[in-house]
Amino acid sequence: MFQEIKNNRDGSRIGLLRTRAATVSTPFFMPVATRGAVKGLEPQEVLATGAQVLLSNTYHLHLAPGEKAVKKLGGLHGFARWAGPILTDSGGFQVFSLSHVRKITEDGVTFKDPASGQEVLITPEKSMRIQLDLGSDIIMAFDDLTGLDPAKAAVREEEAVERTHRWLLRCIAEFKKLTKGVKAADHPLLFGIAQGGLNQKLRRKSLEFVQSTEVDGLAIGGLSVGEGTKEMHAMLEFLSTLYDPAKIRYLMGVGEPGNMRFAIQHGIDMFDCVLPTRNGRHGSVWITGDKKLNLRNGGHVTDKGPIDDDCDCYACQQGYSRAYLRHLFKMADPLAGRLASIHNLRYLQRICESYRP
Amino acid sequence: MFQEIKNNRDGSRIGLLRTRAATVSTPFFMPVATRGAVKGLEPQEVLATGAQVLLSNTYHLHLAPGEKAVKKLGGLHGFARWAGPILTDSGGFQVFSLSHVRKITEDGVTFKDPASGQEVLITPEKSMRIQLDLGSDIIMAFDDLTGLDPAKAAVREEEAVERTHRWLLRCIAEFKKLTKGVKAADHPLLFGIAQGGLNQKLRRKSLEFVQSTEVDGLAIGGLSVGEGTKEMHAMLEFLSTLYDPAKIRYLMGVGEPGNMRFAIQHGIDMFDCVLPTRNGRHGSVWITGDKKLNLRNGGHVTDKGPIDDDCDCYACQQGYSRAYLRHLFKMADPLAGRLASIHNLRYLQRICESYRP
Repeated sequence: MFQEIKNNRDGSRIGLLRTRAATVSTPFFMPVATRGAVKGLEPQEVLATGAQVLLSNTYHLHLAPGEKAVKKLGGLHGFARWAGPILTDSGGFQVFSLSHVRKITEDGVTFKDPASGQEVLITPEKSMRIQLDLGSDIIMAFDDLTGLDPAKAAVREEEAVERTHRWLLRCIAEFKKLTKGVKAADHPLLFGIAQGGLNQKLRRKSLEFVQSTEVDGLAIGGLSVGEGTKEMHAMLEFLSTLYDPAKIRYLMGVGEPGNMRFAIQHGIDMFDCVLPTRNGRHGSVWITGDKKLNLRNGGHVTDKGPIDDDCDCYACQQGYSRAYLRHLFKMADPLAGRLASIHNLRYLQRICESYRP
Repeated sequence: MFQEIKNNRDGSRIGLLRTRAATVSTPFFMPVATRGAVKGLEPQEVLATGAQVLLSNTYHLHLAPGEKAVKKLGGLHGFARWAGPILTDSGGFQVFSLSHVRKITEDGVTFKDPASGQEVLITPEKSMRIQLDLGSDIIMAFDDLTGLDPAKAAVREEEAVERTHRWLLRCIAEFKKLTKGVKAADHPLLFGIAQGGLNQKLRRKSLEFVQSTEVDGLAIGGLSVGEGTKEMHAMLEFLSTLYDPAKIRYLMGVGEPGNMRFAIQHGIDMFDCVLPTRNGRHGSVWITGDKKLNLRNGGHVTDKGPIDDDCDCYACQQGYSRAYLRHLFKMADPLAGRLASIHNLRYLQRICESYRP
């Protein structure tokens, strides 16, 4: 359950999200543990960046090792050794973005497992079952993302939004069925996803629909998918006038510092993104002023300084030099990506912390 | 300087090696930080396995980032953030094993830098200068390894041994020149390398020659290079009767548990090997009884247990399950190789510790 604590003058707000695993402070950023691990990092290292909630991908974990195996191993908490809250996505985004062979019907989405070649059907109901087996604390509704396809957007956007709404009702019904009898304290949360692309009319409709249901949180899907910054900001500005203050707001897939600041100042409470870790693994780090620095640059070859003098992340505080990190990147040593990931994750947590009391 | 403390009944001995960085207990195993890092591991993690001395490769560091850059960055100690003793090899082994284009003369070895294509000449004198610039605490003499080439072994072995001896004298002379005026407490150690392949006559000759010089330690080169276990053990048995008790003995390139136990029980004090970390990165770990276990095996898919119930390494003590590690290996997540490397390094340190008081 979400509790708004205070609205700030800059448009941001602070609050508390109570989950069965822990109560956490908003705004917050969730590192992405795609397959149950933030690539190369121990859970303790992720925790030390200030992360409160971990995100894991239903699509990947369903394919390997499978939710039944994860359940046997104590759920994601036991499997990945993360005691805090875990949010799982619904699998929808990966089904639409990673699977080339797919068939979408009112029932759900059929795709081919890239590893085994076998056909897999995911329905709203199945997504709920998988996420509950994974032991997720925050469960996402399964949405229809066909509207994201630019070639089909004009025609399909409205259809996709309508189907997303019908699927949300099926998710809520299945979720209720599966969690019947579960004590309130052990109850996971269910979030709905509002779509609508860059169409204000559809966006308003979708937002109002999702907010009218019994979901515990509202997610904004279908942004940060290739549209321009201007378009994304305009939509966040538009949406900021429509929110129900009682519901937490999660902007999916956003994790670029400037966009995060803008979104927080337009009422967003939650974020996730692969950018800090993916960029980190490629040697790209953020430093004070939201500037990007490439640690692979030759200019760092004898640079004794840390990534960022003003940073309190583990890598900077331990005194790993830019010169050493550059060398490790050139040598393809995974320690480099690990330290840069830690730095970038901490950078985003510091942004969130700057809005919290 | 080496000090023998005690000879045990099983043929092993315990002692102390005083280096300018620290005094360490023998027998010990040195993890290999090829390019200044044990692949994927922080120095603290390596230290926590019980490692006392780190080994780094002159050949690789000379090519990138270069000894002058390392020197500017505080030597290997500052660069790689390892406060304990560091041993550098002479570069000889890599020149002979990794460089396809090379020319060997009495002066030294010319090879092509695989990255830049430029010709590089390494002489005994240059190897000393590079290792001193790197800030090494234990410097290895530059040896001629042409005898290792099976096609040339019969003809070249004696020639290679003779040249190794002449080069050792040049190394000693250059080392003295370069360290003239350095306080005793700040003096690095110099080790000579005995060669001779599987030829007892040559081995005795080489061992006696190296022991007759002013070197601080004796290294056995040219074993663990592809010969059978029986041949290696027979040679270690033969050599064990010839050692000067005042000199520390370093068996280069050995790190398989059974071979290490055999060597320790035949008077060897020091080891290095890439096996624990290279095997670890591929999912192969040692468990009680020197058995090998492949963590990638499907049998581990729901195995909640640690790598080894009897192991006190970080990975086992933290409770990382075989199931989770298997999953990470399948997903090519570098965290898997890191934890398996830690386990294997600890396995070898525990062998060494079992002989120490």
